[in-house]
Amino acid sequence: MKLVTYEADGRTGLGRVDDDGITVRAMAGVTGERDLLAVIEEWDALSGAIAAAGLPVVENPRLRAPFPSPRRDLFAVGKNYREHVAEFGRSGYDTPQRSEDLPDKPIVFSKATTSVTGPFDDVESHPSVTSELDYEAELAVIIGRGGRGISYDDAPDHVWGYTIVDDVTARDVQRDHKQWLLGKSLDTHAPMGPWAVSADEIADLGALEVSSHVNGELRQKAPVKDLIFDVPELIRVISAGITLLPGDVIATGTPAGVGIGFDPPRFLAPGDVVECAITGLGAQRTTIV
Amino acid sequence: MKLVTYEADGRTGLGRVDDDGITVRAMAGVTGERDLLAVIEEWDALSGAIAAAGLPVVENPRLRAPFPSPRRDLFAVGKNYREHVAEFGRSGYDTPQRSEDLPDKPIVFSKATTSVTGPFDDVESHPSVTSELDYEAELAVIIGRGGRGISYDDAPDHVWGYTIVDDVTARDVQRDHKQWLLGKSLDTHAPMGPWAVSADEIADLGALEVSSHVNGELRQKAPVKDLIFDVPELIRVISAGITLLPGDVIATGTPAGVGIGFDPPRFLAPGDVVECAITGLGAQRTTIV
Repeated sequence: MKLVTYEADGRTGLGRVDDDGITVRAMAGVTGERDLLAVIEEWDALSGAIAAAGLPVVENPRLRAPFPSPRRDLFAVGKNYREHVAEFGRSGYDTPQRSEDLPDKPIVFSKATTSVTGPFDDVESHPSVTSELDYEAELAVIIGRGGRGISYDDAPDHVWGYTIVDDVTARDVQRDHKQWLLGKSLDTHAPMGPWAVSADEIADLGALEVSSHVNGELRQKAPVKDLIFDVPELIRVISAGITLLPGDVIATGTPAGVGIGFDPPRFLAPGDVVECAITGLGAQRTTIV
Repeated sequence: MKLVTYEADGRTGLGRVDDDGITVRAMAGVTGERDLLAVIEEWDALSGAIAAAGLPVVENPRLRAPFPSPRRDLFAVGKNYREHVAEFGRSGYDTPQRSEDLPDKPIVFSKATTSVTGPFDDVESHPSVTSELDYEAELAVIIGRGGRGISYDDAPDHVWGYTIVDDVTARDVQRDHKQWLLGKSLDTHAPMGPWAVSADEIADLGALEVSSHVNGELRQKAPVKDLIFDVPELIRVISAGITLLPGDVIATGTPAGVGIGFDPPRFLAPGDVVECAITGLGAQRTTIV
């Protein structure tokens, strides 16, 4: 199923999206006051009823992030597509002497909860903080069942589903502060959605194509199977010593084609429109302001 | 005031600690079902009543972290004491060619919510994940009033108070994954407390002494005024593009004397007892298991 968090008539609700990818139906008759996290936590008990119910259509819903206020910072992964590692290395934004080497272990950082915004919202350019704004279309995993010490083989049982995150990055802040948290966490720099898609909808995760356009020009396009560390491996590594929780989001990394991959770099500016899409997971469209 | 989150008779409550630093009094008669975050959010309205109330003594309280489940990951700062920068550089755990240089901007990372544990709890050694466990006693700031774009001069108005965080670190994980999130976030690797101390109790923050002992041996000792980036500057930098929220915790960095500062390094092992203390903020005592 494709679930959304929406706003209509000034109220926030949960919705199920029809196969047309457009029609949003209000789930409140089945799920009550629950938010998406609560629904995921009770998924085994609720999913049948959500799927079967004849739900009312919501007029003029404004889609918010599936988790508008996540329970904690998003996990995110750096340099997880081969060609992106190369472009990042050439850009000089990383330790110069070995930056085109593929990482031998996943590079995991976080994005603060307050960076999350809706899939069609404006993205702030923060001109007083950065002059090097960049986009990163990414597949994001939504954890269903939590746990620690999850094996590679068991990892799929802990995935509730998937969404899209644009891992918007202030490159100068990312570089100057060494650790990436600040450069990855400016307010509105994690557009999420449009949908939270349950894993059963995805027949072949590796075949999904991650893409981004800026002002209509294709910038990134790669299949998920190009990930250096795939989804089960990321779950295995992160959960080795950290208890994963239901509703945790892991943004898995971005393919080649980001702004710093160009020479000279092509950073975002106010007025630019960024579209990030993944096969089967929909598309988001944000405007830099 | 010194506030605590405690467990007694299987229930979690909020308490006020007497001037003796030992006696815990139950605040429920004044604060009802509120947790520490809710009390801080309503501090102006509640603090007078909390201070004035004659509260019942709690028998055998077990102190938990002031925020047992923080609203999001902790902010934390690396290499923020001069002598610690030097020892970290010499250890070879950082980029070799410039690691003894002082950072020109704060290095900010995060610790996952699930790393938080109580001030007298056991700290897991995670032998399957790390063989290089280290301690880092730190002053932690608790944000009261949230905001973005907070100036240096206004920063003190946004501080609710202070606590202690032991920024326990798996050095091999910190190094091997490049970004520090995983190495800083293993379960139980952020003992917090014992108290959340309101800012009005601290007459001279810079004069407070941060110290740690391992098995009774003094390892770290430095005054807060030795911070390279002081508390108002950290708040200014983090909030420049990130909205700070009430209850946010910022661990401000650790003084020299950590395990990797010795040659050979002195890592922690099961059975070791770590005590972290700060003048006026109490002391925590954890055992590695």
